[in-house]
Amino acid sequence: MHTEPAPGMPAAPIDFYFDFSSPYSYIASEQIEELGTRVARAIAFHPILLGAVFRISGMRPLTEIPLKGDYSRRDIARSARFAGVAFKMPEVFPISTVQAARACVVLQKLQPELVSGFIHGAFRAYFAEGLDIAKAEALREVLAKCGADVDAVLQATQSAEIKERLKNDVDESIVRGVFGAPYFIVDGEPFWGFDRIPQMERWLTSGPF
Amino acid sequence: MHTEPAPGMPAAPIDFYFDFSSPYSYIASEQIEELGTRVARAIAFHPILLGAVFRISGMRPLTEIPLKGDYSRRDIARSARFAGVAFKMPEVFPISTVQAARACVVLQKLQPELVSGFIHGAFRAYFAEGLDIAKAEALREVLAKCGADVDAVLQATQSAEIKERLKNDVDESIVRGVFGAPYFIVDGEPFWGFDRIPQMERWLTSGPF
Repeated sequence: MHTEPAPGMPAAPIDFYFDFSSPYSYIASEQIEELGTRVARAIAFHPILLGAVFRISGMRPLTEIPLKGDYSRRDIARSARFAGVAFKMPEVFPISTVQAARACVVLQKLQPELVSGFIHGAFRAYFAEGLDIAKAEALREVLAKCGADVDAVLQATQSAEIKERLKNDVDESIVRGVFGAPYFIVDGEPFWGFDRIPQMERWLTSGPF
Repeated sequence: MHTEPAPGMPAAPIDFYFDFSSPYSYIASEQIEELGTRVARAIAFHPILLGAVFRISGMRPLTEIPLKGDYSRRDIARSARFAGVAFKMPEVFPISTVQAARACVVLQKLQPELVSGFIHGAFRAYFAEGLDIAKAEALREVLAKCGADVDAVLQATQSAEIKERLKNDVDESIVRGVFGAPYFIVDGEPFWGFDRIPQMERWLTSGPF
């Protein structure tokens, strides 16, 4: 059922689940805010850790699967070109994204106005500029560029509260059925993959189909 | 490099690999010939057996993967509606498609003019009309509907030549890198999934990107 928000109530945001090490999440990140503008929905950004999700689903990083791995490297680069998104396959892939995700959670708590810029900066650093954002130096650079107080954010990533908050966010994503990235939920309807954005747009524009 | 065929030489066909038990292959089968017409390419139909392919790639039927299974059932039905294709999830899924694939190979050899009609008939029987085409009776019905000599085709499916021919086709698909279905190859470029049809169309229309 397509439920319209009550008059005066803002429509629910588009929940966008992503991992900073997921190339298709990067492509989606370059499109999702324009979609939000077109359909008058905010974006709720949810950094998750695919490693934790894959332990449940039994899935593996795409590039490690026989046959599919070779194809996926080609498909990722071609899909980026198709979408008009700058892309260079990172030399080290996949990487641990727990520090980047925690930094994102810190900003969501303390400086939400920097979150979108940080997310784009981190994705572009890793997938277009050849920076390994698992390395402290690269992450510092991304944080500085988006205007964050680098030392304060990095210190906060080590607090029990932030670690717990990210862990809870990841656990909650699994409870909501997220098994890969990018993953979107709008008004209870799940969409997996940047290639489902056209379906999601129709859903948001014309209602459920 | 985008190579134009020499003058007078027809362009190579679009190789379309599918399994009769693959719902996304069914959706693609309803779109591929219109695409072929738009880009002036013939379609080369290749029935394969995903079971044999999955033994190499280590993949499993979508619906059997934790979390992803529930989503995929929803996504398949929604993707069919999005594409405007009649769909009803079969009660028995997946099924053995070796007999249907062999029947297709028989027609490709003896009555190629019936192949397209048979493929659409088999897919629609299984994914829209609730018929289990692994059962002899249902397959007979599909064959009869497309105008084939039912007994002759079924008898031929048991010949060593046809069995060998299908086995060779499947082996060759694996050599070409096919790890799932639907899978397309055009001028050496692979595309996996019905959701890559827009990329394939741009490739065929404007050349490699």
